[in-house]
Amino acid sequence: MKQNKITIIYCPGCRWLTRASWISQELLTTFEKEITELALCPSEIAGTFQVFVNDKIIHCRKKNQGFPELKILKQKVRSIICPDKNLGHSE
Amino acid sequence: MKQNKITIIYCPGCRWLTRASWISQELLTTFEKEITELALCPSEIAGTFQVFVNDKIIHCRKKNQGFPELKILKQKVRSIICPDKNLGHSE
Repeated sequence: MKQNKITIIYCPGCRWLTRASWISQELLTTFEKEITELALCPSEIAGTFQVFVNDKIIHCRKKNQGFPELKILKQKVRSIICPDKNLGHSE
Repeated sequence: MKQNKITIIYCPGCRWLTRASWISQELLTTFEKEITELALCPSEIAGTFQVFVNDKIIHCRKKNQGFPELKILKQKVRSIICPDKNLGHSE
């Protein structure tokens, strides 16, 4: 099975664990067959919220001026790990 | 900062993502300063629910005949990554 790792780096001081955990459950549900590992990592730098797919950054709260919109995030993940997958509601 | 990775392997078919995610949030909250990465991994073998600390298994649903009791799981994690830490309610 192809290894696909998603990493979410979040600021624990900003109380963003809950948001990171929500996103992780959404991704692990939508991509149940494709994601082999989803890592939640407390950040060392305050204000961090970043999402990586196989070490490629796909969202940065600072650069993208806000949190990821779930539908768009799922489309970005799909384009990297399973381009042919239909996302149903998230299309 | 010392790297401490917790891995939870769960069976998606058994719908254990929610339980795995709950435990992940509890561990990331209790050990906010000590855990650097918490990985959620869908299992390839049905009925799997295992917890590892730095690649050392500390709970197996099959071998331990059931799911981990949170208080005991936190004590096991503490004994490996921060033996001196007081767990308050989980003592």
